[in-house]
Formats: sequence, structure tokens, C-alpha cells
Amino acid sequence: MGDPAGVGLEIAVRTWAARGPTEPPFCLIADIDAVARAARRSGIDVSVEAVDRLADATGLFARVLPVLHEPLAEVETLGTPSVANAPAIIAAIDRAVAAARDGHATAVVTLPIAKATLYTAGFTYPGHTEYVAHLCADMAGDGARGPVMMLSTTGLRVALATIHEPLSAVPALLTQDRIERTARVVLHALARDFGVARPRLALAALNPHAGEGGALGREEIEVIAPVAARLRAEGFDVTDPRPADTLFHPEARTRYDAVVAMYHDQALIPIKTIDFWGAANITLGLPIVRTSPDHGTGFDIAGRSIARIDSFAAALTVAAAMAARRRQQAW
Amino acid sequence: MGDPAGVGLEIAVRTWAARGPTEPPFCLIADIDAVARAARRSGIDVSVEAVDRLADATGLFARVLPVLHEPLAEVETLGTPSVANAPAIIAAIDRAVAAARDGHATAVVTLPIAKATLYTAGFTYPGHTEYVAHLCADMAGDGARGPVMMLSTTGLRVALATIHEPLSAVPALLTQDRIERTARVVLHALARDFGVARPRLALAALNPHAGEGGALGREEIEVIAPVAARLRAEGFDVTDPRPADTLFHPEARTRYDAVVAMYHDQALIPIKTIDFWGAANITLGLPIVRTSPDHGTGFDIAGRSIARIDSFAAALTVAAAMAARRRQQAW
Repeated sequence: MGDPAGVGLEIAVRTWAARGPTEPPFCLIADIDAVARAARRSGIDVSVEAVDRLADATGLFARVLPVLHEPLAEVETLGTPSVANAPAIIAAIDRAVAAARDGHATAVVTLPIAKATLYTAGFTYPGHTEYVAHLCADMAGDGARGPVMMLSTTGLRVALATIHEPLSAVPALLTQDRIERTARVVLHALARDFGVARPRLALAALNPHAGEGGALGREEIEVIAPVAARLRAEGFDVTDPRPADTLFHPEARTRYDAVVAMYHDQALIPIKTIDFWGAANITLGLPIVRTSPDHGTGFDIAGRSIARIDSFAAALTVAAAMAARRRQQAW
Repeated sequence: MGDPAGVGLEIAVRTWAARGPTEPPFCLIADIDAVARAARRSGIDVSVEAVDRLADATGLFARVLPVLHEPLAEVETLGTPSVANAPAIIAAIDRAVAAARDGHATAVVTLPIAKATLYTAGFTYPGHTEYVAHLCADMAGDGARGPVMMLSTTGLRVALATIHEPLSAVPALLTQDRIERTARVVLHALARDFGVARPRLALAALNPHAGEGGALGREEIEVIAPVAARLRAEGFDVTDPRPADTLFHPEARTRYDAVVAMYHDQALIPIKTIDFWGAANITLGLPIVRTSPDHGTGFDIAGRSIARIDSFAAALTVAAAMAARRRQQAW
């Protein structure tokens, strides 16, 4: 559901309306009346149909938009998140994750939430990513465990060693352990979820010119390069830290399967410069598949049918592809 | 001349060979024998002709490559910078700047130097930019004084508030005074050098999500936004600090004439993602026009004729356009 006061439900409804025969079917877990309101506001002729079980949704999707009803406490006010509705928003996440855990859903795609509002209602996680990881913490899983945030578009995947941190806090957070854990999750996910048999991983430097031999910072020498050496010694194809401004032009992007960026904007600037609307946000290193659009609630434009659906559509496609690869490996 | 052990002279020779009728003529200030050797290695049939005065170069350029001879102490060894040649490399810069100061040249375009080698020979400046600024320090000039580094390609200009600094040093360097001085130099240069009558300047945020109201860093609130407010109060079109990942996609680039980036990679990642080979480096806020290619000496590929000439060619074109605008205003 995400926050019903934002653009999430209208994006879901419009994505359903734009569905093609090959796109993955989805079931909304949301207040069915809020979904109907979103459809009406969008001027879309959509049959919203309640289902009791996810298993029923797939067959219906071509004809109607299936909804597992999760009732809101009050009717949403567009642009204004409601603390009273926070429990339903959280419950929708819980039910989606439970369905994926139980195998009734192949993947979870979350719509944007307003963290500040959820905090008021007692939510204690930095965001979706950490909450979903918490809900899966007791599950067995093969390989390196995240959560690690990755953004993906055609021809570019970038994972983040640090995410929502003030820039001044980043250097101290970048330990060898953190970078190594991030790199291992990405390497594992490239093989398991993206079908890259022998993944090539590029590590971004923190400092300009990759520190220029220590003259412009020593993190490359002391923190990043030792991790690269350790992983290479295990046979992984991992680069030494590379100047970040040399990593993202079209020719450079052919040389690796993913980059590990050291901080938020180092990952987000290139991917949003290349594809502002269509990148998907993927949580790597979870026992379930979870993706999301890479934008926020869009309270300022909610209800105006101008929010772009590209990123949500990409999140659905990526989630379905990841789930298919995991199923193949399980067979 | 730049460092004759690098790719500079071969790029200059090959740019001359690729000249079109509308491209700006240039005169090399370099060892004429080193230029001839670079031409021979490139397999280019070029007549190198010594001139005594820059004024003679313009008329010759269509037919020969004009060179003001600045003798090296020893023959260059490709890939290995020579301390003995450092004085000639510096003298070439001195003569180019003197020519621009005296009005005998309309602009200076520098070729890459190896700073470490020049330091050994007693050079005490962080780079070309600061040295050229020093050589012009006693000149009168209108408007805000730099030097400020800007990178430019078609449809994108990015100036830097900090340049070659370790990332951990950046937050403390970003004072209101520094950002304001940078912004004023850029605003002045957009009008004077780029013909933008009413420049629109975007300020990049330091932190992810522009600090998210202080939750992810307070530099936006305490340092950058006050500068923006002050400049707007004077009538300038300057944005509040914007999330850096929202500034560089094609649609965003239509909304401003230049961006002030807070640190090196914040500027270099987007411009090199968009145009890895062809961006020009421009020093703003000098009484003379000075540009350069945005790459280094390329010692590892010197003499192989594989260095791209795009950035040097762009530096020439931009320099000529800037000089033409300044002349128009002087008339």
C-alpha cells in the first residue's frame, strides 16, 4: 500500500492499466476503497476486485486489479499523511513479507512510506529496507546476508556501502568490514539473482582521483584496497578502488556487472543522471525478493496523475526476474 | 607545452591535423623539435614552423603548425617526466600568460603537467590554475575574482566550491564565504564569458536528500541556504541547495545555466558520465581567458596516438568563444 496520502496507489492503478501481456501480475495489499478512489481520481476505468488469497490474484490480473483488503482507519487526505493510518500501512508490509516468506508470493514490491509519520506511530526502523530485513531475520538463507541497497537500470547496477548518512559521517563509517560485507552480498546476489555466473565487481574510491596515492586521502590505501585484495585472493573478480568519475560513462559500464559506491550520492548521481525516472531499488541479501521504486511518497503531486510509473514498473519487472532465477535454482 | 613526456604535444599536433576552417587557430609555445618528434610519432604529415611573434601565427595556422620555440633541457622520454625539463615547461606557461596579459593572445589553453615533477624543480603551486591566477594577481579586473574551476560540456556547466581535497576534509572547508565567493565568480562569468544575460545558478546540496531538513546533515541549513538567500536578496537567480542526484538528468539541466558543486566527484561524476571525453576545464574569475583539457598527462599511453583529442579541442573552442565575448564587451 505504502502511504495512501501519496502517489503510491495511483501509480499502482495506472501501472495495472498500462499492463502488457508479458508483465508480471501483482496483487495490491491495501485498503480496497482507497484503491478505488485512486482509480477514480486517475480517471481510469478499473475493476478493483477483492481476493481472499494471493493465489487467486494471478488468474484475475489480466481482467481486474486484485486487492487483499487491509482497511485504513480513516479516509486518506492527499498530501497529508495520517498517523491514524500508520498501523494499516505497517500491516500491509507485514502481510506482504509473510506471503513471500510462506511462498504465496514470489516477491514483495513496496510503495513509498512517510517515515516521519510511521515513527509517530511507534515504528522504529530507518525505513522499509531495515524493517523487511527484520521481518526475515529468523529465516534461514544461503549466502551473504544484507540488507544491501542496490539501484538498477539497464546496463548499470550500483550498490551502496553507506546509505542515508550525513556526508561528514561517511569516512568513519567506511570500515573494511562494512565494505567487505557489502561486496560479498553483491557478489552473491549477482550470481543468484541476476544470473551472472562470474560477477565482475568495481569498487568506487572515496576520494577524488582515488586518493592520488594518498595525497588526497588515505581511505583507498588503508580501507578499500585491502578488501579488494582479500576478495581477489578468494578468486573473485573485484577491482581496486577506482576514481568515481571514471566509472559511469557508457564504455566504463561494460567492464563490470555492479559497482559498490561508498556513499549515497556517489551511487545516486550517476544512475539518476542516466535514468532519472526508471531505476529500481533492490534490497540484496534477503531470503525473500524485495524491490521498490526509487522515489518517495510525492505528497506534493499526489492525486494529479502526473507521477511517473516507470520506477514502480521497473521494480515489478526486476522483482519477477529475480524470483524466477531463485525458483530455477531451487528446482 | 605541458609535459612533453605525456600526451599533450601529440594531442596538439593531431588537433592541428584535424582542424576545420571554423576552428580557432592556436600557436604552440613548446620546444619545436619535441613538436616535430610528436608529429613524426603520430605519423602525421605536418609542417611545423617557428614564429617569433604570436601575431604571425594566425595567418600561418591554416597551412602550418606555428610554434613559439621554448627549448627543453633534454630530449623527452615518453612516459617519464624529467626534472631537467621542468623550467622549460614552466617558462612556456609564463610566456603564454604574458602573451594573454599583453593582448598578443586572446586566450591561454594549457596542456597537462606532472605536478610532482614540477614540485621537485621548485614549483610551489597546487596546479596550473593557481599558478596562472598568481601570474595575473596584479592585474586589474572587473567583477568577482577566482580562480574557480568549472567543467563544461554541451548543456552542462559545473563549478566547484572545493576541488582536490580528501572527502573527509570537505565539510569543514565549506564555509559560507567560500560558497558565496564561488557563486559570485560563476554568476559574473556566466554573464561576461558565456553571454547569459540573466544567469540561473543551482546550488548542489552536500548531503543526501539535501540533508532532509537537518536529519541527514545540517550544512544545507547552516551554510548553503543562507548564501542562496543573500544572493537572491541582491536579485540573483540562485536556488536553495538541491539534492545532487536530482540535478543532472536532461530535464533538470534545462533549468539552470550552471551548478555549483560542493566537492570534486559531485561535479565530475555527472559531467564525465554524460561526456567522458569531451569536457573542457575552464578557470573562471581571471582577467585572462584560460582553459585546458580535463585529463592528465597520460604517461601510460604517451606516443601511441590513442589519446583522445576531444577535450583539448573543446578547450580551444570554449576559450575562443569566451575571448570573443570579452572583446565584444570591451568595444
